[in-house]
Amino acid sequence: MTIKDIARIAGVSVSTVSRVLNNHPDVSDAIRERVQDVVKAYNYVPNNSARDLVRSQSDAIGVITRGIGNLFFSDMLETIGREIDARGMSMVLRQIGSDADEIQAGALLEREKKLRGLLFLGGRFDYTPEELATINVPFVCCSYTNSFGTLSEDAYASVSIDDQQAAFNAVRTLIGMGHKRIAALVPSCRDRSISELRYNGYRAALFASDLPYEKELVVETGGCFEMADAYEGTLELLDRQVPFTALFTVSDTMAMAAMKALYDRGLRVPEDCSVIGIDGLRMSEYFIPTLTTMAQPTEELGRESVAILMDMVQKGLPPRHMCLWATLRSGSSIAPL
Amino acid sequence: MTIKDIARIAGVSVSTVSRVLNNHPDVSDAIRERVQDVVKAYNYVPNNSARDLVRSQSDAIGVITRGIGNLFFSDMLETIGREIDARGMSMVLRQIGSDADEIQAGALLEREKKLRGLLFLGGRFDYTPEELATINVPFVCCSYTNSFGTLSEDAYASVSIDDQQAAFNAVRTLIGMGHKRIAALVPSCRDRSISELRYNGYRAALFASDLPYEKELVVETGGCFEMADAYEGTLELLDRQVPFTALFTVSDTMAMAAMKALYDRGLRVPEDCSVIGIDGLRMSEYFIPTLTTMAQPTEELGRESVAILMDMVQKGLPPRHMCLWATLRSGSSIAPL
Repeated sequence: MTIKDIARIAGVSVSTVSRVLNNHPDVSDAIRERVQDVVKAYNYVPNNSARDLVRSQSDAIGVITRGIGNLFFSDMLETIGREIDARGMSMVLRQIGSDADEIQAGALLEREKKLRGLLFLGGRFDYTPEELATINVPFVCCSYTNSFGTLSEDAYASVSIDDQQAAFNAVRTLIGMGHKRIAALVPSCRDRSISELRYNGYRAALFASDLPYEKELVVETGGCFEMADAYEGTLELLDRQVPFTALFTVSDTMAMAAMKALYDRGLRVPEDCSVIGIDGLRMSEYFIPTLTTMAQPTEELGRESVAILMDMVQKGLPPRHMCLWATLRSGSSIAPL
Repeated sequence: MTIKDIARIAGVSVSTVSRVLNNHPDVSDAIRERVQDVVKAYNYVPNNSARDLVRSQSDAIGVITRGIGNLFFSDMLETIGREIDARGMSMVLRQIGSDADEIQAGALLEREKKLRGLLFLGGRFDYTPEELATINVPFVCCSYTNSFGTLSEDAYASVSIDDQQAAFNAVRTLIGMGHKRIAALVPSCRDRSISELRYNGYRAALFASDLPYEKELVVETGGCFEMADAYEGTLELLDRQVPFTALFTVSDTMAMAAMKALYDRGLRVPEDCSVIGIDGLRMSEYFIPTLTTMAQPTEELGRESVAILMDMVQKGLPPRHMCLWATLRSGSSIAPL
C-alpha cells in the first residue's frame, strides 16, 4: 500500500493525500475525512523518511522565552514542553533577554528552523500590525495579550490572566485587612506591558477605596522582575523614610527579594510590613514566611496556549483569545493591621 | 560562484566541498584548508536552502533535562541555550522526570529529530556500554559522570564537579565550626548517582574527623531533590527526636525546603540548627537566611559542556572529561556551635 494507492482509492490526487497526512490546512473537511477513512481502512502507515524529505523540519514549534531565568516561565516551560511533545512536535527553545525584541527573535527563528508555529512566552503588549508582518506562521502570546497595541483580534492568539484585575484584587486584599499606606514595587509605571497593567490595578484599587495615591510610595525598579533590582528598589523605598505598612509587588520573585531587603534592614514580615505578590511560583510556597500571592493558573496557561496554537497549525483554525483567572494563594506574608 | 566552481578551483570533488562546508569530520586537514582558502578567496556564501535539503535538521542538538523544575538545571539551561545558539545550532529540548530513562529518551529524540549531538543535563552515573549502544551521535554528560558505570573513558564526554569532594568540604565546614552531631538529608544513600556520591562525601568527612556515623541522623527522602520530599524528610528527622546541631543537604532546593520545615517547627536557622547545601542557586542568595552552599560553577559547566560536544560534532574530536571545582558561597545559614 503506497500513497498512490490511497489517492486512487479515495479518488483524489497524491498531493491531496500528502496534505491530509501532513495536516495542512488547505484541504476541505469532506476531502480530509474521505482520505482519512481510506487510510484507516487499509491501516496505511506513512513512510516517515519520505515525508521528512518533503517537509523538512516541519514539526518544529519555536518557543521564545523573554526574560532569562524568569522562574514563572521555567515553571510553565515544563507544561509547554510536555504538551508540544505529546502532539509529536518538537520544541525549539530560544531564550532572550527581558529587554530583547521577541518578534525579531521569532522571525529569525522561523526562517532558520522552518517553524510551523511560534509560542511567545512573555512579550510586549503593544504590537502593531506592521511589526507582526515579519511573522509568517501562526503564533500565540502566552501569559500576555495586546492591551496597548493595535492588532486586530483575528491577527494573533493569546492566553493570559487579566493582569490589572489580579493586581486590583491583591491590593484590595491588603486594604481589606486595614492597610491604608500601601507601597508598590514595579519595574515600570509606563512600559506599555505587564508592569504598567499591574501598576494600573494598584492605582484602581486605591481609587476604589478612596485612598490617596502617593507618588513617594511607588518605586520603579527598572529591568524586568529581576530579584537584584527588586532588592535595591526596596532599600530605596526604605531610605525615603515614608511610612507604609504593606508592600504590593508585581511578581513573586520581586516579592521574595523585597522580603529579603526588609529582613536585612531588621523589619519583620508581616509584623512590620505585609508583602503580597502575583504569580504563584512553587518556590514562594517555601519562602520564609510563605508568600501570599495572586496565583496564575500556570498549568492551564501552558496547556491552553499549546492547544490553541496546535489548532491553528494542525487544523488551520482561526486564532482564539483566552483570559484565565488568578486566585489568591494564602501564605503568611500579610497580616491585618 | 557555485559549489561546482569551488570544487574545480580547489581541485576536489563537489561532495568534498560539501563535507567541508558542513563541517563533516571525514576530511583531511590539508584538504579542508585548501577548500576553505578558496571559499574565503572568492567570498563564497553557501546556498542554505540547498544545504538544508542535503542535511535535513542537521543543526539540531538534543538537550535532555532530567528532573523537571530542577532550579539548578534551569539556571544552567540559559548558558547551554545561548552557547548552542552562538554556534548556529538549534537546541531541541526534552524534559523528562527525575526517575525517567534519559538514554531511552535520548535515543528516541535522536531518531525523531535527526540530532547531530546530545547533551544530557543530569542522569545516572552507572551506564554500561550495552545501554549506550542505542545512542549513535556524540554526547556529553553535563553535571555528572560515570563513577559507578563501566564505560571506557573514550566512549563518552563529561563535565562535572567532584560531587563527593564538594559534600566532603561542606561537612568539613560544619565540623570546623564545632558541630559534631550533623544530620544528612539525601534522596538516597545508594542510587549509584549524585545522591550516593554526596552521601559518601558526608560519611568521609565524619570519618576524617573521627566522628561516629549515626544512622538515625540520616534521612532518605526518595525522589530526586524535590522540595516537598525534603520538607517531609526534615519533619521525619525532627520526629525521631535525635539531637543534632547542623543539617547537611545534597542540594540548595532541599536545603531551602529543610529550612522551611525547621522554621515551621519553631526552630531558628542558624541559632538552633545550621544548614548547608550544594549547588549555589541564584534563588538561595535571597532566601531568609541566605543559604551557605558549595556553589557549582554553573556558567562554566554549561559552557564547557557545549564546547566539548561541538568539538566532537563539528570537528570530529574525541570526547573529553572535565572536572570543575565547587566553592563555598558564604551565607547566614551556618554558625559556630
